[in-house]
Amino acid sequence: MSVSPFDHPLLGGLLGDEEAAHCFSVEAEIAAMVRFEMALAQAEAEEGVIPAEAAEAITTALSTANFDMAALRRGTARDGVVVPEFVRQLRALVGEPHGASVHFGATSQDVIDTGLARRLVELLAILGGRLDHLVERLSLLEERQGGIQTMAHTRMQAALPVAAARKIRSWREPLLRHRDRMTVLENEIAILHFGGAVGALDELGDKGVGVSRRLASKLGLGAVIRARHSERDGQVALANWLSMVSGSLGKMGQDMALLAQTEVGEIKLASGGGSSAMPHKVNPVGAETLVALARFNATLVSAMHHSLVHEGERSGAAWTLEWMVLPQMSVATATALRLADGLVDGMEFVGTAKPH
Amino acid sequence: MSVSPFDHPLLGGLLGDEEAAHCFSVEAEIAAMVRFEMALAQAEAEEGVIPAEAAEAITTALSTANFDMAALRRGTARDGVVVPEFVRQLRALVGEPHGASVHFGATSQDVIDTGLARRLVELLAILGGRLDHLVERLSLLEERQGGIQTMAHTRMQAALPVAAARKIRSWREPLLRHRDRMTVLENEIAILHFGGAVGALDELGDKGVGVSRRLASKLGLGAVIRARHSERDGQVALANWLSMVSGSLGKMGQDMALLAQTEVGEIKLASGGGSSAMPHKVNPVGAETLVALARFNATLVSAMHHSLVHEGERSGAAWTLEWMVLPQMSVATATALRLADGLVDGMEFVGTAKPH
Amino acid sequence: MSVSPFDHPLLGGLLGDEEAAHCFSVEAEIAAMVRFEMALAQAEAEEGVIPAEAAEAITTALSTANFDMAALRRGTARDGVVVPEFVRQLRALVGEPHGASVHFGATSQDVIDTGLARRLVELLAILGGRLDHLVERLSLLEERQGGIQTMAHTRMQAALPVAAARKIRSWREPLLRHRDRMTVLENEIAILHFGGAVGALDELGDKGVGVSRRLASKLGLGAVIRARHSERDGQVALANWLSMVSGSLGKMGQDMALLAQTEVGEIKLASGGGSSAMPHKVNPVGAETLVALARFNATLVSAMHHSLVHEGERSGAAWTLEWMVLPQMSVATATALRLADGLVDGMEFVGTAKPH
Amino acid sequence: MSVSPFDHPLLGGLLGDEEAAHCFSVEAEIAAMVRFEMALAQAEAEEGVIPAEAAEAITTALSTANFDMAALRRGTARDGVVVPEFVRQLRALVGEPHGASVHFGATSQDVIDTGLARRLVELLAILGGRLDHLVERLSLLEERQGGIQTMAHTRMQAALPVAAARKIRSWREPLLRHRDRMTVLENEIAILHFGGAVGALDELGDKGVGVSRRLASKLGLGAVIRARHSERDGQVALANWLSMVSGSLGKMGQDMALLAQTEVGEIKLASGGGSSAMPHKVNPVGAETLVALARFNATLVSAMHHSLVHEGERSGAAWTLEWMVLPQMSVATATALRLADGLVDGMEFVGTAKPH
Repeated sequence: MSVSPFDHPLLGGLLGDEEAAHCFSVEAEIAAMVRFEMALAQAEAEEGVIPAEAAEAITTALSTANFDMAALRRGTARDGVVVPEFVRQLRALVGEPHGASVHFGATSQDVIDTGLARRLVELLAILGGRLDHLVERLSLLEERQGGIQTMAHTRMQAALPVAAARKIRSWREPLLRHRDRMTVLENEIAILHFGGAVGALDELGDKGVGVSRRLASKLGLGAVIRARHSERDGQVALANWLSMVSGSLGKMGQDMALLAQTEVGEIKLASGGGSSAMPHKVNPVGAETLVALARFNATLVSAMHHSLVHEGERSGAAWTLEWMVLPQMSVATATALRLADGLVDGMEFVGTAKPH
Repeated sequence: MSVSPFDHPLLGGLLGDEEAAHCFSVEAEIAAMVRFEMALAQAEAEEGVIPAEAAEAITTALSTANFDMAALRRGTARDGVVVPEFVRQLRALVGEPHGASVHFGATSQDVIDTGLARRLVELLAILGGRLDHLVERLSLLEERQGGIQTMAHTRMQAALPVAAARKIRSWREPLLRHRDRMTVLENEIAILHFGGAVGALDELGDKGVGVSRRLASKLGLGAVIRARHSERDGQVALANWLSMVSGSLGKMGQDMALLAQTEVGEIKLASGGGSSAMPHKVNPVGAETLVALARFNATLVSAMHHSLVHEGERSGAAWTLEWMVLPQMSVATATALRLADGLVDGMEFVGTAKPH
Repeated sequence: MSVSPFDHPLLGGLLGDEEAAHCFSVEAEIAAMVRFEMALAQAEAEEGVIPAEAAEAITTALSTANFDMAALRRGTARDGVVVPEFVRQLRALVGEPHGASVHFGATSQDVIDTGLARRLVELLAILGGRLDHLVERLSLLEERQGGIQTMAHTRMQAALPVAAARKIRSWREPLLRHRDRMTVLENEIAILHFGGAVGALDELGDKGVGVSRRLASKLGLGAVIRARHSERDGQVALANWLSMVSGSLGKMGQDMALLAQTEVGEIKLASGGGSSAMPHKVNPVGAETLVALARFNATLVSAMHHSLVHEGERSGAAWTLEWMVLPQMSVATATALRLADGLVDGMEFVGTAKPH
Repeated sequence: MSVSPFDHPLLGGLLGDEEAAHCFSVEAEIAAMVRFEMALAQAEAEEGVIPAEAAEAITTALSTANFDMAALRRGTARDGVVVPEFVRQLRALVGEPHGASVHFGATSQDVIDTGLARRLVELLAILGGRLDHLVERLSLLEERQGGIQTMAHTRMQAALPVAAARKIRSWREPLLRHRDRMTVLENEIAILHFGGAVGALDELGDKGVGVSRRLASKLGLGAVIRARHSERDGQVALANWLSMVSGSLGKMGQDMALLAQTEVGEIKLASGGGSSAMPHKVNPVGAETLVALARFNATLVSAMHHSLVHEGERSGAAWTLEWMVLPQMSVATATALRLADGLVDGMEFVGTAKPH
């Protein structure tokens, strides 16, 4: 079954991205949840909230935990979130007397949002690396071909000749700005979400702050004073950024498809797709796909903004909507970066360099 | 890997729908493509476009065809569409001298769009059946509980008491209208897409119309005078309908979640989700999920409208965008109908029936 | 002040449409509301709900009513809808003893939604007339130039030569289908909305049905069994249609801009825009604007689908959202039709007709 | 005429905002354009690009310029942008021999984008001031009522009691983060756009950098190395921010509407709207409007992301799309801030403070 283009056995070859998709795999998701629960037990033991032996028992049991996946699936269908059944299985694994110390003082959203934060940090590392690489390839392209004279087009009409360098810079420089924006973004994403049932860490009494700090540190995340369960601006900022990156690449793809038109011929793309009916054609598949990915993310980003209307202390509706959108946007951007890299490496401006 | 919530091993239990997703499985996709190519060969043989023996050879070879899926995936990545590699494999399977008669006069879009049309007809049958069933369950609910007095709410404030029947009808009657709209829609979807390279069936000379009619008839689809390759209003009409159905169910879900609030208590939901931190809670998971699905489709429908800007005789960008959106919207609506059915069956208005 | 591009003193020259905008003017709005209240009084008098003299007094007073617009504005700001203050002013105009008979049994939404229905009927008449005219102009273009050979483009690459007639038909035929869809749509739009406070016409006792029928007939609208206050599928169907029309025109505009590229030169546009920096340029302004209008509506249609999640018996949030979106979408489509007409009349395919 | 809710004579009382709308008035627009042309002439004279007398003549003529608005409107309709006709009028005003020095080396997009940048700086000052004020009012509310016990709600169900302070902070803290984001944003917005015909300032020879620096300084904007004509990430970043602010306020509005429900009664809103049919009701009009504004912007932000696909050196389609969306989003956010302020000042938590 593959409703999604990213997971599709065939289309996934074009639109999918294994490295980025791994961040959203069920294996990565469960590993992040297990890591949260282990770190929580340790932090709580260190703060004297649960006995040290409980933390040890939990650490041991969770290190080798296997889960009843069918039950997790059923639990998710019933509870709207996997955590209640996940914790039930964990507690059974730990057994008496320490089972009750598992997940102590935490709530579903703590596990899910923190687990996601960890995985988004990995995602950003992947995307940041690709951005850097693409920027470098564009710099090389400029060095190699920036002096070639090309035609500038305004409002779909030939305007005046310009150096290819101008076009290349209009593709590269937004990426540099996105790279800068990523630094700010990382600080918004790489945070601990830990608030307990209604965000107040009530069950931890005066140990809430201490446990929070220890837990954040163990997970390599920033500690914030209050859990932001119902404040989704961090997630939306990420979605904005993902769509801005794919949008800038969509501009590059659209430019390339226009420049590579048969009648224009300002660039040649190394590898084009074939046609089942017209073997003479070389289709700018990668460039067109960049446009499609840009418009896909430009559409989906709207759902993330709607999810800001996250009513009360936790909205099942708004939270579920995020799950339906953010992973797809992430992979779409990763794919766009991957395709852009190949396009840039394989393209050539046609024409002659202007003598200085 | 499971970037999509619909295919996700855990979340798929809540958000997925196996029956509807089957229409978008790679198996169904390839089966529909094979069926197209077989019917095409037969139609062309009957019209004398290809030899009868060629059609026989093609039918025989395709009846038991196995595909090199890895090569299909690579072909999709390269060509932006699976068909060129698919046809290459088919031709190799058929071998000399009839391989060249495979896919004769057709283009990638003919295979993909017609194959999709067949599968969308199946999807509509599934969704139509569910709509009918849900309407019936709402009628039963009205019979059973329509007389109970409830409070009407306007602008989030208690207004005046009304019979529960009024609320139930405001959920059911839009569904009846959607059912009527489906009849019109089916005629827009259940059509043959067959135009060859640039839509003109050039290679078939004066046999184009004859082959089209036979092909449509063999596939149980309507024949249209001209292929609508670049005219996507049929697909968009489907997306509109899918989102209208999930939107109406989202309204029902939102109403249920509001009526089931602890402080309101006008209805009781049979099955609610549990919480990892607050065992006393009964969460209206299904109702919230209806809202999430409604907003998901309300967002994605926009991308389908953007894909109307389908430049030239075939737009790789706009066409790919459809593939990224339409299957997801379809399954979201199927899931919404499935969840709604369960919610209606399990809900109860709390209160007493007004004496007549 | 002119935040909107449609009302803007300068930009309105390009993007506005006076004829369509008139349907959304405050004059048309108030006239439709007055008409509703007059017809309601007459219908109620005929059914014996209010005295005949009351209906007469109301008719007389409303025929020449002038409103305190500043108070209406303040009332809208306070109540979220103009009707409470509007009715207050009407009652004062009618005076004792018949003032209380004004608006009897009705609610704000009855006045607003029915008034809008009347104005949307006018809008559809305008748009339908323009569609017909544009279809005719495209037919004339085909007659005149359909035989000219042009290049078909698939995936942004020259594919094979085709007759211009094929391109023209791919622009015209979707419009014919939209014209057919309009007939269905009119029946969904041209209906009376009349339900009273919570949709049940409680105050009218057993006279509800009779008053409804008379009122619908007086207003030239269809009567429906129950008011659809919280069921917004009719409005959404209209938005879908508006965006489908502008989307199909966006495809035509995109095609024209591509065909008119300097390097392609397959068509010439009669009138292009000038540039402040490059006097030699002829910009395809109308064609580009069709694309912009298509994407504008493709975006806004999403908000209308979100407004299906119209909670309870009346949602202030969802209803207000419609007001923010539907008038703009309507005018955008009207403008697109107007621009398309000019483009088609002024364009020419460059090339020679293929000898038969 | 008033297609837009923001400019509407009645609805504008609820949804409009005069202060913010002023930034998008035609007066402000023309004033910003005049200021650009005057500063340009001065900068160019200082760099020796045009004669000093030309700059003087231009300054004098423009200081008292009156424009033929009807001609500007016709020019916009023809050219897709007001600048060619605007410059024509300016040149006529300046007359011989210095008319040709007006707008020397500049292009339409320089004038429009820079003029907009100036006005957006003013907009941000307005919005920043309102954010600060709202944050302060929320702090006062917390001081006054933060100790009152309220019920936390997760997934639309009563969860556990919490102090009102927790709710108030979940409304205020995202605003503080938005305030911080605004600082970054200002640097992206407050920049000069100056590139000439195709972005390369060709006509200025080696004086391009010098003129740019002087021009930026005169206009109080940052100078950037290359004009970003076709790189729209700054504008999109603004749209993201506008929608994040209105989204966070939408969450507050949704919370208030839920807490003010008749059956919940956790808060009382000072001023509610009245109903034409049910005088007993107090409708949470402001709170609902915040939700509507949030969803409006959450929808429109998508169009801005689509406009990143800005083909070539200048895209008429993508640029026009921005004009249709950004002013509306700006005013929607301004209105949301205005309404939020009133809501916070007028609301009260019902209940008793928990003894310490």
